[in-house]
Amino acid sequence: MSYGLAIKVEEGLIFAADSRTNAGLDEVSAARKVHVFERPGERCLYLIASGNLSLCQAVVQRLNAELTAKRPAKAPERSLLKAETLYAGAEIVGQILREVERGEAPALARHNVTFDVSFILGGQIKGERTRLFLIYPPGNFIEVADETPHVQIGERKYGKPILDALLTSRTPLSTAAKCALLSFDAALRSNVGVGMPIDLIAYPKDSLVAGTTRKIGADDPYFRTLRSRWGEALTRAFQDLPDPEWIVYRLKSKAR
Amino acid sequence: MSYGLAIKVEEGLIFAADSRTNAGLDEVSAARKVHVFERPGERCLYLIASGNLSLCQAVVQRLNAELTAKRPAKAPERSLLKAETLYAGAEIVGQILREVERGEAPALARHNVTFDVSFILGGQIKGERTRLFLIYPPGNFIEVADETPHVQIGERKYGKPILDALLTSRTPLSTAAKCALLSFDAALRSNVGVGMPIDLIAYPKDSLVAGTTRKIGADDPYFRTLRSRWGEALTRAFQDLPDPEWIVYRLKSKAR
Repeated sequence: MSYGLAIKVEEGLIFAADSRTNAGLDEVSAARKVHVFERPGERCLYLIASGNLSLCQAVVQRLNAELTAKRPAKAPERSLLKAETLYAGAEIVGQILREVERGEAPALARHNVTFDVSFILGGQIKGERTRLFLIYPPGNFIEVADETPHVQIGERKYGKPILDALLTSRTPLSTAAKCALLSFDAALRSNVGVGMPIDLIAYPKDSLVAGTTRKIGADDPYFRTLRSRWGEALTRAFQDLPDPEWIVYRLKSKAR
Repeated sequence: MSYGLAIKVEEGLIFAADSRTNAGLDEVSAARKVHVFERPGERCLYLIASGNLSLCQAVVQRLNAELTAKRPAKAPERSLLKAETLYAGAEIVGQILREVERGEAPALARHNVTFDVSFILGGQIKGERTRLFLIYPPGNFIEVADETPHVQIGERKYGKPILDALLTSRTPLSTAAKCALLSFDAALRSNVGVGMPIDLIAYPKDSLVAGTTRKIGADDPYFRTLRSRWGEALTRAFQDLPDPEWIVYRLKSKAR
C-alpha cells in the first residue's frame, strides 16, 4: 500500500506521496509515485499513483509514450501535454488505465491479485482554474468539489482526521503543505505500508510551471522539527484536558 | 461499519464501542455492541462486536443460550461464565462464530454479502491477570501482547494515530478513557459509519465485578467539553508550528 494526497486551496495546490512499495514484507523498496506533465506558461499537471506498482508504472509508461506518439489525423488526443482541459486529461488516464486492465487483469486474477490502482490527476491548464480529479481502478473518475479541499488515495484513513480538522480552502499554500506533512506523519507512525521519503509539491495558482518540489526524508530538518514539536504539543494538549471524573476505582466486591 | 476499541493499562481495562449500524444508507439505527458476562467477585468479561449486525447478534444469542444450557457430562464447557481461563473463553467465542458461519455463510454468499464479523473479548477471571483477545471472522484469535496497550475492530484506522501517540501501559485508567474518547472523536468526525452514542466501560484491575459503564451521547457534558477543547488545542498547536519556508510563491513564468 502507499499514501497519496492532494490539497486544493485558494492559493494553489499541494501534492504529496510516499515512496514505499512492497510486494510482500521481504521486498520493501522506494519508488517515485509523483509524475509531472508540464508545458511552462501553458500547463502544469501532476499525477499521483497508489496501489499495485507494476500497474501504476504501466499506466505512466503509456502516458509518457503518448507524449511523443504520432496520432492519426482525426484520432482523439491522448497526450496529457495536449489535452484541452483537465477533464479531458482525466479521460485519457482513465482510458489508458482500462487498456492496462484489459492486458493485465486476467493474468493477475489467475494469481489472485486484485486490479488495484488509483490516481489523482490535478493541476492547471491555461484558461482553466486549478482542478483535481480522482481516478478509480475501473477508469471512472470524479472531480473534487470546491467545498472539499483535499482528496486522498491508498492508506488514507490514518491521515484524514487531521485534514478534516485543520484544513479549509482559505488555508495559505505553505500552511496547507504543513498540514499535508502532519497527515503523512500520522500515516507513517501507524502503518508500515507508508514510508519515507515523501515527495511534496506546492503549485501556486496561475503560475503554470512546475512548482516547488521537495523530497522529504527522515533527516529533513523541517520535517524533523515539525514531527517532534507536533508530538510534544499533542501530548501537552492531552495532559491539559481533564480526565473523566465518573470512573469508579474502588473495588466494589470488597465494598459489599 | 462500526468501531470498537479495548485498552489494557496497568490499572485495568477500557472497552468502547459506537452504536451505529447501517444496512444501506436508508437504514441507519443504533444497536448495543458491548456485552458483559459477570460473576461478581469471580470474573468479569466483556465482548465487543464489529461487522454485520445480524451475525454479531447471532453469536451473542448463542453465547447467552449457553449460559443456562445443560451440557452433557463430559462435553467441553461452552459458557463464558464457566470457562476456566480467558483463553478458553476466546475458544468458545471462536467455536460459536464458526457454527454461525456454517449456518449463515452460504445464504450470505448467494447475496454477495461477506461473512464479516470480529470480536474483542477481554476482562479478568480470578487467578488470571487482565487479558484481551481479538477474534477474527474465521474464528481464530490472538491474545493482545503486553507491549501493545490497545486493540481495535471495525473502522479502526481513523482513531489509531491518537492511540499510538498518547497511550502507554502506564497511562492511568481514567486518562486511558479520555484517550479512548479522543480516538472515537477522530473516527466520528471522519466516517459516517461510526455514530453515537458510545458505550464506554472502565474495568479496574482485580475488581472482578462489572466496572463503570457510561453511555455517551452527543449531549454528554464531559464528551462535549473534551471534543471542543481538543479541537481548539489542535488548531492552536497547528498555528504555532512554523510553515515551511522553502515554498516559492512568485510566478516563475513571469520572472523569466
